[in-house]
This record gives sequence, C-alpha cells and structure tokens, in this order.
Amino acid sequence: MATKRIAVILSGCGVYDGAEIHESVLSLLAIHRHGAQYQCFAPDIDQHHVVDHLTGAETGETRNVLVESARIARGDVKPLTGYDPTDYDALFLPGGFGAAKNLSRIAFDGPDAEVNADVSSALQATFAAEKPIGALCISPAVVARVLGEVTVTIGKDPGTIGAIQAMGARHRETDHGEVVVDSENRIVTSPCYMLDATIGQIADGADNAVKAVLDLCA
Amino acid sequence: MATKRIAVILSGCGVYDGAEIHESVLSLLAIHRHGAQYQCFAPDIDQHHVVDHLTGAETGETRNVLVESARIARGDVKPLTGYDPTDYDALFLPGGFGAAKNLSRIAFDGPDAEVNADVSSALQATFAAEKPIGALCISPAVVARVLGEVTVTIGKDPGTIGAIQAMGARHRETDHGEVVVDSENRIVTSPCYMLDATIGQIADGADNAVKAVLDLCA
Repeated sequence: MATKRIAVILSGCGVYDGAEIHESVLSLLAIHRHGAQYQCFAPDIDQHHVVDHLTGAETGETRNVLVESARIARGDVKPLTGYDPTDYDALFLPGGFGAAKNLSRIAFDGPDAEVNADVSSALQATFAAEKPIGALCISPAVVARVLGEVTVTIGKDPGTIGAIQAMGARHRETDHGEVVVDSENRIVTSPCYMLDATIGQIADGADNAVKAVLDLCA
Repeated sequence: MATKRIAVILSGCGVYDGAEIHESVLSLLAIHRHGAQYQCFAPDIDQHHVVDHLTGAETGETRNVLVESARIARGDVKPLTGYDPTDYDALFLPGGFGAAKNLSRIAFDGPDAEVNADVSSALQATFAAEKPIGALCISPAVVARVLGEVTVTIGKDPGTIGAIQAMGARHRETDHGEVVVDSENRIVTSPCYMLDATIGQIADGADNAVKAVLDLCA
C-alpha cells in the first residue's frame, strides 16, 4: 500500500491570530505516527491582525500567514495556490483563531463570513475529488461555510453551533477527543480547544481525527 | 505522591530565532502524559533577531522572547525572574536557536558565550537545590556553559561537541531518542533536532528525557 499523503492547511502561528500550535504539531505527529506523510500549506496573505499572546492586545504589527506558518512547519510550507488534490489523499485543517480570522472571517461575520478564495478552492476541489477532509477546533465552521450541507462538530459552544446551522450544515455535540465522521461527505471533525482541554486531550482529538481521515482514504 | 511540577524555559517561538516548536509542544505533552504539571517561563528580553522561517533571511523586526513564547504556552508563561526552584521539582529546556541566540550567545561566541543572567540564575539555583534539569537539542550546551563539569549530549555535531568540551563539560554521542543521564549532577539531555529527525523521533526524545527527569525527582 502506498504511503498516504495529507495536505495540512496552517493559518499562522499562535492561537489568537493564527494556527493553534498544539493542535498543529499534534496533527503532524499523528499523521506521522499513523504511517502517512504531511505537507503543510498556507495562504500567502497578511494576517487579519497580530495579537500579543501575553496580554491579548493587538500589536499593530503586520505578519504574513505563510511566513508565520513556516515556524510550525520548520520552513517546509507551500503557498496554498500550489495545492492540487490529485497529489494528496486528504486535506486537514488544525484550528486556532487563524482559521476564523485569516482563512475566513467567521470570527467577525459568523454564518455570512467570506472564506479566503484559496481556502475555498482547496476545500471544494478536495470534496469534488471525493477525498476526505479533517478539521479541528473552529476549522469545521470553515468547512461548513464552504461545503454547506455537511455534518460537523465544534464541541458545545452554542453561538458557533448556531452559526454552523445557519450555514446549512448539521452539528453534533461532542466531548474531549470525540470525532464526528460524516461518511457520505468524507468529513472528519473534532472539537479540541473549542473545549477547555488539556494538551493530552488535544493529542487524543488530533490522533483520533487523523486516524478517521486515513480510514476514509480510498 | 504529590503531582510533580516542571518549569519549562522557552526562548521564543520558531526554530531559527526562538524555541523549536515541535520540541516545546512535545515536551509539554510528555510532562502531561507522565502525570506531571508544567509551567512555562521565558526571559522578558528582545530576541537577538527575527528570522523569516520561509526564506531564512533576517527581517529587521523586533520581537520579545516572553511575548513570542506565549504563543506556544497559549498565554500562560511567566517572566523567568519569577522562577524559584522551591516551587518546582525540575527545570526543563527544549531547544531551537533561541537557546543559542536569546538564552545565550552560543550561536555566535561558542564556548566563551555569555548566558542571559536570568537563565544562568535559574540553572544555578536549580542545581544548588539538587533538583534535576532536562535539556533538548542545543540547550545542553547552555547547561554546560553555566554548570561546567557535567555530562551532556547534543548528538553528533563535532563543532558543538568541541565547544561543550571547551566549556569543561563531558559529551557523549547519541542517536535519535537516546538520553544521557548524568545521575551525579541530575542532568538529562537528548539530541532531538540536533540530528536530522522526524517529528516522531522528537516525540520519542522529549518523552524519554521527561521520563528520565521525573525518575530523578526526589
């Protein structure tokens, strides 16, 4: 059996303005531990803003999503425009506010939010190619915004659940480490830090989600 | 038995100018998985420089080590001046160039490098309190620079080994995931990304080092 290849979309580097670092690293580890390979991608755009992670205040700096994502990827990250689902077996999105501020504007505009065109194309092309998509934390809302009638989980947050339903998607509540598999649409989601979680629960959620994605690979 | 508490010193956020992200996250995970608790610390100083992790070029930006470390710690990081070994069972340093550029100047000045005063105090106080110190990747060189006659590993790199020996420390060569335990001085070290490693090998190295540190805790 050929080694499965999973494309991972990062959204910066840091929970408040980019990709959640624990979710990202533990997704990469899970992909590796399950015998697959990963390639990181990110949109080559400025972050919505930069947040001082010590104080929570905006800093006024400008940082680029692709450049900051390279910190998590140790330099090995490609512009998302270069993603072609033909080259991969699945697509995977860790969470963090970057998914809701950079990959999309869901943090600001809820169910009516725009999604970055490269992100939208990547999700649509993967879906059209009948390949699975995994998403953690808030990223399932981005998947729902683009694909509409899919079933996902972001945990238990009522506001986000309402937004996902307003997008035309279905939501199932979950607890730590649990995964919702929409087999018909090949969508795998897990709440991770959308719940008040320990790093061990994030490792479990990422591992369970990656395993479910690989189980869906043809 | 009381839950063990490990203080973790971060040096920024990103392998080329800060703490290596995989090593940092996988150290925190290992501490949690082994039933201990972690508290992150970092010096409140400017980084030596900021490196674009996509191109490797310096960017000319100014970033603060404590503020950037907060990205890895999800906001929960304290200034290193507040570290008191009385409150912890062990001290742990993941790697990354931040250890050799921010915590110390080993990347520039080798065996004669200055070590940040807060880092030096933290290491000396932990050693004097007869509590164990763990260090990954290049961080063992910082430990050697401060404590002198200890036995450590950074893997196989001849230049770094020579520098460590010039500091008055002893070096033992290691391969992926291996740990050197200096029982007399309670120092645990593992090479991690000082070798050309996979993320799985980093997880193994961090886990083995954390386990060995906890075994040394009184």
